[in-house]
Amino acid sequence: MRTTQYLLSTLKETPASAEVISHQLMLRAGLVRNVASGLYTWLPTGLKVLRKVENIVREEMERAGAIEVLMPMVQPADLWEESGRLNDYGPELLRINDRHDRAFVLGPTHEEVITKLVANEINSYKQLPLNVFQIQTKFRDEIRPRFGVMRGREFLMKDAYSFHLGEACLQKTYQIMFDAYCRIFDRLGLDYRPVIADTGSIGGQASHEFHVLADSGEDDIAFSDASDFAANVEKAEAIAPLGERAEPTQQISTVELKLERLIKTSNIDLKNTVKTLLVLGASAAGEPEKFIALVLRGDHQLNEVKVENLSGIASPLTFATDEQISAIANCHITSLGPKGLSVDVIVDRSAAHLNDFVCGANVNGQSYTGVNWQRDCDEINIQDIRNVVEGDPSPCGSGNIVIKRGIEVGHIFQLGEKYAQAMNCGVLTENGKNQTLTMGCYGIGVSRIVAAAIEQNHDAYGIKWPAAIAPFQVAIVPMNMAKSARVKETAEALYAQLQQAGIEVIFDDRKERPGVMFADHELIGTPILLIVGERNLDEQNVEVKNRISGEKSLMAISDIMSLFS
Amino acid sequence: MRTTQYLLSTLKETPASAEVISHQLMLRAGLVRNVASGLYTWLPTGLKVLRKVENIVREEMERAGAIEVLMPMVQPADLWEESGRLNDYGPELLRINDRHDRAFVLGPTHEEVITKLVANEINSYKQLPLNVFQIQTKFRDEIRPRFGVMRGREFLMKDAYSFHLGEACLQKTYQIMFDAYCRIFDRLGLDYRPVIADTGSIGGQASHEFHVLADSGEDDIAFSDASDFAANVEKAEAIAPLGERAEPTQQISTVELKLERLIKTSNIDLKNTVKTLLVLGASAAGEPEKFIALVLRGDHQLNEVKVENLSGIASPLTFATDEQISAIANCHITSLGPKGLSVDVIVDRSAAHLNDFVCGANVNGQSYTGVNWQRDCDEINIQDIRNVVEGDPSPCGSGNIVIKRGIEVGHIFQLGEKYAQAMNCGVLTENGKNQTLTMGCYGIGVSRIVAAAIEQNHDAYGIKWPAAIAPFQVAIVPMNMAKSARVKETAEALYAQLQQAGIEVIFDDRKERPGVMFADHELIGTPILLIVGERNLDEQNVEVKNRISGEKSLMAISDIMSLFS
Repeated sequence: MRTTQYLLSTLKETPASAEVISHQLMLRAGLVRNVASGLYTWLPTGLKVLRKVENIVREEMERAGAIEVLMPMVQPADLWEESGRLNDYGPELLRINDRHDRAFVLGPTHEEVITKLVANEINSYKQLPLNVFQIQTKFRDEIRPRFGVMRGREFLMKDAYSFHLGEACLQKTYQIMFDAYCRIFDRLGLDYRPVIADTGSIGGQASHEFHVLADSGEDDIAFSDASDFAANVEKAEAIAPLGERAEPTQQISTVELKLERLIKTSNIDLKNTVKTLLVLGASAAGEPEKFIALVLRGDHQLNEVKVENLSGIASPLTFATDEQISAIANCHITSLGPKGLSVDVIVDRSAAHLNDFVCGANVNGQSYTGVNWQRDCDEINIQDIRNVVEGDPSPCGSGNIVIKRGIEVGHIFQLGEKYAQAMNCGVLTENGKNQTLTMGCYGIGVSRIVAAAIEQNHDAYGIKWPAAIAPFQVAIVPMNMAKSARVKETAEALYAQLQQAGIEVIFDDRKERPGVMFADHELIGTPILLIVGERNLDEQNVEVKNRISGEKSLMAISDIMSLFS
Repeated sequence: MRTTQYLLSTLKETPASAEVISHQLMLRAGLVRNVASGLYTWLPTGLKVLRKVENIVREEMERAGAIEVLMPMVQPADLWEESGRLNDYGPELLRINDRHDRAFVLGPTHEEVITKLVANEINSYKQLPLNVFQIQTKFRDEIRPRFGVMRGREFLMKDAYSFHLGEACLQKTYQIMFDAYCRIFDRLGLDYRPVIADTGSIGGQASHEFHVLADSGEDDIAFSDASDFAANVEKAEAIAPLGERAEPTQQISTVELKLERLIKTSNIDLKNTVKTLLVLGASAAGEPEKFIALVLRGDHQLNEVKVENLSGIASPLTFATDEQISAIANCHITSLGPKGLSVDVIVDRSAAHLNDFVCGANVNGQSYTGVNWQRDCDEINIQDIRNVVEGDPSPCGSGNIVIKRGIEVGHIFQLGEKYAQAMNCGVLTENGKNQTLTMGCYGIGVSRIVAAAIEQNHDAYGIKWPAAIAPFQVAIVPMNMAKSARVKETAEALYAQLQQAGIEVIFDDRKERPGVMFADHELIGTPILLIVGERNLDEQNVEVKNRISGEKSLMAISDIMSLFS
């Protein structure tokens, strides 16, 4: 490709609208342009990267035995009615009516369409297992699209769905897909981790997320410093402290200070205090509201997902209002404490291990010190309800927790029978009985990977693409070609030679100053720059610059092809 | 691919809902499945064909110097407001509101998005010409989707847009794209014709359609039987008959019969009669309505597009009601005639050439015979307002018109400045002045090509794919593999060998009767069947069946690879 016949569209300035580095660089390097909130046009350079990611994903899906299909983006709403998600999905599901006022949705995912298809096409156990995938445009009406294609509204996804007779068969395909995902991210050249994940609203049993590690990631991931263990912080278990709880050593006493103030004035360790929250309990229709107290160590954070998964808790998780707290404990939330509280109490494992601790006294502005669970409180229910923190023992039993940030680029689920049951998707078994299928589903954010790769691979000058997804393998940058026939001839000859060998080469034939050309190619992140200059041509050399290492060296023109072998 | 690990999904019965042969075969051969009206899932076999078409289109676009981008399917409505098409486009443009109630459309085409992009990205004449394309999903809310993917609502299209400084540059790219289109349809192996087309609602100047010839086509195309001339019947010029108009030979006389009845009773040739229509003339707001008579030879059909393009005619073309006709001529439409009519008269070239003709007398149930234009009628305006018919002299000056049916699969336009002007898309010229760009646009219906290829290439057994787009190059069909270890070994070895050589092979490893397997592969249209049977293995032969010619022959297993070299 000659630059003069290409749409380079690099920008010198960083657009003010772009908050994260990948979005800034994608705009500056001419990869995408914004069309409307969360909607982007992929420019030629960006599209080359996108297609390379897509091809690697496709190859590994095929290697894993998945078969490619293509489902429509516009889906009839009645399929979503059938699965029960039309109401559940919320406003991210864009609902539309056609000219005949029939209801449709813009597909954010395709469980319904594929389950319906399989229900119609597959009749016998002999046709199973079946694993189908597509690489297709999806739409999710994000309330606040941001970070460019990282959290856009229209985006490219690979979604795969597998169908099985029974759990064992699903487990086998799940493992095959897990391995395929690892191969994909290995081939993409990204530093990633598969992590144990919460299944979220898609439902189902086991689930792994694949994260590209980057400081700018939106998710916290808990690792063991001594094993392969990795889990989304939302899902990582906080295990109970070792040892038995000690006997009381102090008398309980009342202090005329709010807990917060007490900690400041009395040099109390936050780790020896507890905080108390009130949430709505689950109750049947018509029954009076019921509240439940949640108690955590003062230095720990509530994990709402863990609480929601407990029985007896209202879903979605709902915190008591100030008025409700007053009615129950006759005090403000900051003075709540577990002693003498007239509701059921759930205590986090770490808080439950405390002895002689400090807490609110359920009287405004008063605290207790020297509290002990067995001596001073009613019976408590001990659960894991907090986020893990760095230094916690790893739940795998080996090492301690380290927390890093990640960008979720893949997610695999064991869905179970949720969709197959709702949509009547079953087959005749060997015994002639009808059995509902068990499903898995497997997503990869193809366009998101492009942004994540940049978050992980950039420097002050621009993008440093992993070789497998660089838009061009090499750039030819001639110095003052207009003034030197020899430079022009050499550059043209090199270009012809590289093109003929099938190398993806960009030839910068613009009449620009060398500085401008270098800046553009460093920004775009082409791995190798071949600099053709008059002063090296006497020895028939060109300068080779490695974008990743920054190294420069002279190389004989006749040896250039060895760079690509 | 092994059939047992694939989603073959062939059907024995033709679904009643499918009207045309391509739709029937696409369902039966397991290429697509209907999701909702005009919405289809592409099954694996169909998607393979679709991708082959897509790849040929992409390669030829790149060869023509077009650069690939990817624009969003969801487009902000304000861009359509800016171009003026938001109101003009009608209900095929699906309008949607997002969760914030902002207006969007599902893109049926991308002139607005690309013109806006180019307006922002291109500033200098040095960056021109620019030719960009995308292969992308489009949505058109057809009032009555039918014929499967031939007239679906969501479909895959290649759309390209070129930008130029001036007409001459556009002409050059237009010719390059014309040639690229010919190469594409040549490579696809289709019998097609580029035809001169009407530009329709997209507007602009010159335009060609590319049609795949098939008896089931929706469009009539006029060809010369002696030259390359081809035009959509809507656009083909009906030239004036040769020679001078003769002098009157008969006296005009009144017959007490309606024209229709007169023709039946008096052995009058329809070709020597004229029929008269009344349409609304163009008039400024506030002016009274004005009517214009259109006169055609009795055996000719009005071409509404040609009439609409004449000056002085109301747009859209509006026929007078029975009441309006009565008010003007005091008779029914069937008794209208050009003599003595109190409105302007436009006469078709062929009708204008008649002498001593028969027409209505503007009195109910009465006709004139022996009418002559110069002697009996007021001044007339002679125009081309009819469809050409078979046997007409070709407007190219060589040969006569033959009419064939075609399926439109491509359309190229010279758009001129329509969009660039509306959206302020210009550059600085060499002289430093701002100049509006001139545009071309170039579409190919990628998914429609799959259906058109089938309409043109099928027989009673199924699809006969052109080699370039067959889903598989070859099928291995073993006879009773379960009972013969030798058949199984040979088939497996052949499969391994073909796969290793990169041949797209489907290995029918089902436990099915030979008849079922043959029927499926003939239906799917795989060009070559390799039939592995016990009785030929003594001589180390397999039977080779050519799907296109139907020929069968024995071939040594060791020679099989020569079929693919």
